[in-house]
Amino acid sequence: MIELRSDTFTLPTARMRAAMADAEVGNDVYGEDPTVRRLEERAAELLGAEAACLTPTGTMANLCAILSWIPRGGKLLCGDESDIYLHEAGGASVCGSAVYAPVPTGADGSLSIGDLAAALPEDPDDPEFAPAALICLENTHNRRGGRPLGPGYLAGVAGFAREHGLPVHLDGARLFNAAVSLGVAPAELARHADSAQFCLSKGLGAPVGSVLTGSAAFIRRARRVRKMLGGGMRQSGVVAAAGLVALAEWPRLAEDHAHAARLAAGLAGLPGVELDPAAVRTNIVIFRLTGTAPGHERFIALMRDRGVALAELGRGRLRAVTHAGVSTADVDRAVAAAAAVLDEAAARGTASGAVAR
Amino acid sequence: MIELRSDTFTLPTARMRAAMADAEVGNDVYGEDPTVRRLEERAAELLGAEAACLTPTGTMANLCAILSWIPRGGKLLCGDESDIYLHEAGGASVCGSAVYAPVPTGADGSLSIGDLAAALPEDPDDPEFAPAALICLENTHNRRGGRPLGPGYLAGVAGFAREHGLPVHLDGARLFNAAVSLGVAPAELARHADSAQFCLSKGLGAPVGSVLTGSAAFIRRARRVRKMLGGGMRQSGVVAAAGLVALAEWPRLAEDHAHAARLAAGLAGLPGVELDPAAVRTNIVIFRLTGTAPGHERFIALMRDRGVALAELGRGRLRAVTHAGVSTADVDRAVAAAAAVLDEAAARGTASGAVAR
Amino acid sequence: MIELRSDTFTLPTARMRAAMADAEVGNDVYGEDPTVRRLEERAAELLGAEAACLTPTGTMANLCAILSWIPRGGKLLCGDESDIYLHEAGGASVCGSAVYAPVPTGADGSLSIGDLAAALPEDPDDPEFAPAALICLENTHNRRGGRPLGPGYLAGVAGFAREHGLPVHLDGARLFNAAVSLGVAPAELARHADSAQFCLSKGLGAPVGSVLTGSAAFIRRARRVRKMLGGGMRQSGVVAAAGLVALAEWPRLAEDHAHAARLAAGLAGLPGVELDPAAVRTNIVIFRLTGTAPGHERFIALMRDRGVALAELGRGRLRAVTHAGVSTADVDRAVAAAAAVLDEAAARGTASGAVAR
Amino acid sequence: MIELRSDTFTLPTARMRAAMADAEVGNDVYGEDPTVRRLEERAAELLGAEAACLTPTGTMANLCAILSWIPRGGKLLCGDESDIYLHEAGGASVCGSAVYAPVPTGADGSLSIGDLAAALPEDPDDPEFAPAALICLENTHNRRGGRPLGPGYLAGVAGFAREHGLPVHLDGARLFNAAVSLGVAPAELARHADSAQFCLSKGLGAPVGSVLTGSAAFIRRARRVRKMLGGGMRQSGVVAAAGLVALAEWPRLAEDHAHAARLAAGLAGLPGVELDPAAVRTNIVIFRLTGTAPGHERFIALMRDRGVALAELGRGRLRAVTHAGVSTADVDRAVAAAAAVLDEAAARGTASGAVAR
Repeated sequence: MIELRSDTFTLPTARMRAAMADAEVGNDVYGEDPTVRRLEERAAELLGAEAACLTPTGTMANLCAILSWIPRGGKLLCGDESDIYLHEAGGASVCGSAVYAPVPTGADGSLSIGDLAAALPEDPDDPEFAPAALICLENTHNRRGGRPLGPGYLAGVAGFAREHGLPVHLDGARLFNAAVSLGVAPAELARHADSAQFCLSKGLGAPVGSVLTGSAAFIRRARRVRKMLGGGMRQSGVVAAAGLVALAEWPRLAEDHAHAARLAAGLAGLPGVELDPAAVRTNIVIFRLTGTAPGHERFIALMRDRGVALAELGRGRLRAVTHAGVSTADVDRAVAAAAAVLDEAAARGTASGAVAR
Repeated sequence: MIELRSDTFTLPTARMRAAMADAEVGNDVYGEDPTVRRLEERAAELLGAEAACLTPTGTMANLCAILSWIPRGGKLLCGDESDIYLHEAGGASVCGSAVYAPVPTGADGSLSIGDLAAALPEDPDDPEFAPAALICLENTHNRRGGRPLGPGYLAGVAGFAREHGLPVHLDGARLFNAAVSLGVAPAELARHADSAQFCLSKGLGAPVGSVLTGSAAFIRRARRVRKMLGGGMRQSGVVAAAGLVALAEWPRLAEDHAHAARLAAGLAGLPGVELDPAAVRTNIVIFRLTGTAPGHERFIALMRDRGVALAELGRGRLRAVTHAGVSTADVDRAVAAAAAVLDEAAARGTASGAVAR
Repeated sequence: MIELRSDTFTLPTARMRAAMADAEVGNDVYGEDPTVRRLEERAAELLGAEAACLTPTGTMANLCAILSWIPRGGKLLCGDESDIYLHEAGGASVCGSAVYAPVPTGADGSLSIGDLAAALPEDPDDPEFAPAALICLENTHNRRGGRPLGPGYLAGVAGFAREHGLPVHLDGARLFNAAVSLGVAPAELARHADSAQFCLSKGLGAPVGSVLTGSAAFIRRARRVRKMLGGGMRQSGVVAAAGLVALAEWPRLAEDHAHAARLAAGLAGLPGVELDPAAVRTNIVIFRLTGTAPGHERFIALMRDRGVALAELGRGRLRAVTHAGVSTADVDRAVAAAAAVLDEAAARGTASGAVAR
Repeated sequence: MIELRSDTFTLPTARMRAAMADAEVGNDVYGEDPTVRRLEERAAELLGAEAACLTPTGTMANLCAILSWIPRGGKLLCGDESDIYLHEAGGASVCGSAVYAPVPTGADGSLSIGDLAAALPEDPDDPEFAPAALICLENTHNRRGGRPLGPGYLAGVAGFAREHGLPVHLDGARLFNAAVSLGVAPAELARHADSAQFCLSKGLGAPVGSVLTGSAAFIRRARRVRKMLGGGMRQSGVVAAAGLVALAEWPRLAEDHAHAARLAAGLAGLPGVELDPAAVRTNIVIFRLTGTAPGHERFIALMRDRGVALAELGRGRLRAVTHAGVSTADVDRAVAAAAAVLDEAAARGTASGAVAR
């Protein structure tokens, strides 16, 4: 099976497995796991932060950040197409008593300063308005096809945030993909935010874990939240060891991007596929089916029959994600499979005169 | 001072004051206040509901409904310009662990079925999505200039909601204004919702209180929430007595609507005022200033100097609201004052050549 | 019916009704109700506080205090027999994400310094412990029979709290009873706390309302919470007017205390009643039934048949509360009724040889 | 260093490391990790449950159970010395809007039926009482020295709970220790509860993870909560692989118990140690220092100088825990170290005549 549903399907490499088997570990709840410490130090260094904290998942890293920044009843300004708003089960409201204030998401994953400003309370002194407390950005942006946000844009939001006394949190689940795509160091992106998280378990390929970074004071607060949420693991050096391998190998994400571009070019050339290859900037390819193409559930099933696993993204969109487990040959096989599926559908469509979708 | 900032400025009438002074009261926490019972029965009857519950405010009535319907982590679909989302301090998330899911608000205060559908989780079984739990509508719609939602529209939303197993709550702070404007009984509007609240203290003119209506089982749940929030008042018959007077006199809201129409027509005729009189359907007049008119803070101050109090609604909009304390003569004086203020500004503007805004 | 279930059954006096009918009112949500302002100023003055805030109930006043002091996840140290812990529906956890930390309640309603100290986290830096954030005391203490806490004790707790950086909130639902009983000004009790609330609607006799006092900064925070909970009422001067009358007449609580003492003495002399008259210090009389006395549900029903309403307090305790609606003659009639009920039961018990309870 | 602070310091064995390195893994968020599935099936089988769910920690397993059972505002009846109440940062109130209702903990870690009954609301229909929603037991009991609760006691609580319509959750962080100590199968203990959790990372020796068990419907709810809290890990088969090894080896806990008994006997024989060896039933030894012994911080430091790490448990108690990393020789060395430290202190005490503590 060529696994294109998500880069969360990466399997640990032999080096990661060896590192896990050999990891020097201790009790991280007491701060005594040397491998976790090394991972946290390395992550902080890469993102230009004072401190870092390992969490079991990106959802928890984001939740730790949100609860560390937002007091009870504060507003969380985030994109209406962000994972934090849509895919993290409302944890900010449930665990944090925070109010989601979704603002429109641009085609490139950005939030405009105008929309952010409009989400601020009309009168901060009036108790009927929940006070704004945090701005969250997503980089790269999952539901906008892995588009990266560049340092210029991030600096602009940081300026706006500073002006209004608001911290900025960067949901950088795929921050290293953004850095590779933009050709900048991860720290060049993270430094415009007051906190950032990235996943070890997506394109970076580790089996488990995310890392949250920020100032030392922020990370102390985040550790309290992590404990409460149940993210204070014991000999988590076994997990961190694989993460350290991942952090040593991140420049290889460029391959995934090349594969995604190749996949996009291939798919865009097929009749019945709506896809702008220029919009594919990292490892995510989003497309729609048109004309005589089958409905997306049917298309996914037919592709699966041919050994290619794709995902639905809702609202008529399909998603293919490249990662370490996908080779150039896999990409070509996936394109060929799509061509065959669409051909057959077109033939059937012509024969029957029916509109399949 | 001609008070046009809000219909929440109504002063109790002599009849209300007499009713409060003479009210037969008891301990309502024990369900023993006969006047509260009469008010609740009358309100339930008017809205065609099984039961009702008096609360100190509309904010609390809405919050009781929200917590009674939504389990921890459920999504509250409401308009992005609704009072529940913008003006009630985020109580649903703070007190209810609920997730606000604001959807676009139409010019007439409606939420489209398409937008409501898009706010549902893409896959209800996937734990990453907060499950939808309630739809809230606002009738009349405050920030959309008091526009009423008619029975046809409400029935459509009710059908959609039923299809998805969702209850509908009607924030009818000004429900009686909607009924008067549409020429239907309040029950014709409320019956499409599973719960509704209306304010005794806005156009209805009572000094304090709102009433929440619904099924007997719903009201039992709401009473539990009311107690927790601190809304279980003692001899609240004194408050209910004024409410009963208000409920006997609601058809007089037609006067307020006539006054608002007169005010709108008058203002719309002034240079520098942007206002569509046809959009004024109840007692709220929203307008903008253009051209040589002063900025809105300045305009409000100048009007206040001339004895007319107006309110700002945010984003360059001004609001004037008619109510029992505003007479036809008051309306005419207010229009004359606006004409004078705008005239002076225009004169100054011509003299200086400057654009005031 | 002689109403002894609670002092929350007081009916407004003629003076209060007149004051309500004549009250000068305005929109208190805009801070424009002159009668509310006068009430808040008078209350602040009486309690020696900078500022005050009217709420619909004591439950809300306590909840506003708790949310104003305790950040998400903080611990609320309170008595295990306190109303805040047992009778306010868990609002601190639901609305405030606060953790109740009930400590043992002494027979006099006090919490010992040792028990308070034991409720502090063993290591404040260890994230597994919820940090202590507030101490709540209750004065007089409802479930301890209206026992007042004196200035010496309160000063001791205040010292302990200061040492640990914790604020103290006084649930003074019946604070004026405590002051009368101890012969001190209310401010002498309130000044050892950082915030305090008292009810206008218990012994003070107003129909609706409580007042929260504290520093100006605290009251600003509390007003935000009050709005969110739905306690920001409109022309609440009608309610405040009765409250002002109540505040002018509080020394009359001495009569209620004399009545309670008379009731206690009368009941204590009856066979089958377990009651220590010396423990009755204000307007609450708590007792148990023993020997051949009927079970408490039966006793309450038999007393009700004879025109006396009593309450159960749980765990085999009965409660009788005196207030402005109870005269000396009422007390004597209540004692006579109890004597008759117990006599009959004893006669029946002797006749049948059965143990009634 | 002989590590006696906690059994959470266990290091993964060679077999565990090999299993992690070789684990067949998949994306567990999609339910596609075969090793996680095997672990969950094996855990469910061992505890006699329908289903199970892997979590990163015991804190999260408990929190998932609490949120799955308790609706907003429900009461959590738990021991006042339980880890859930004291050591999990108040998560039930913060994330679950639940009200902790701590009840007295017996010397053997049990909660009496009388105390549980007293924690139920006096009148379930009265909205001023938070409704009881869950009973939590801890087995073995950490702060009561690892005492196990037997099937008879558990059955009694289960009967009481059923009678009141309440579920029972078993915090079995060290459930396998209880089973070994009592000589029963783990399922004999878990079957009296509606849900249970145990830690792979304490005495069982795995580096990371806990497992929650219960009915299939319960586990579905728990998975939703786990996702929200951020516990839905990706290729967590690497973690589960070590857990499976742990589950194959649990009978070896008998050695830890023998070591703890040996340690207890040794320490109890030393002057200045207060310890009842008969109370040591599993792998935890709790003791106090008396007479001329040094204060506990000093004692811990002196023991550490001699290569023995001990923990403080608060309120003058010290704790030593045996686990796979502690041999018989280690125990004897630890006792010898304690003897030497106490001897020296006694000598110093005699010399100076001072009382050290």
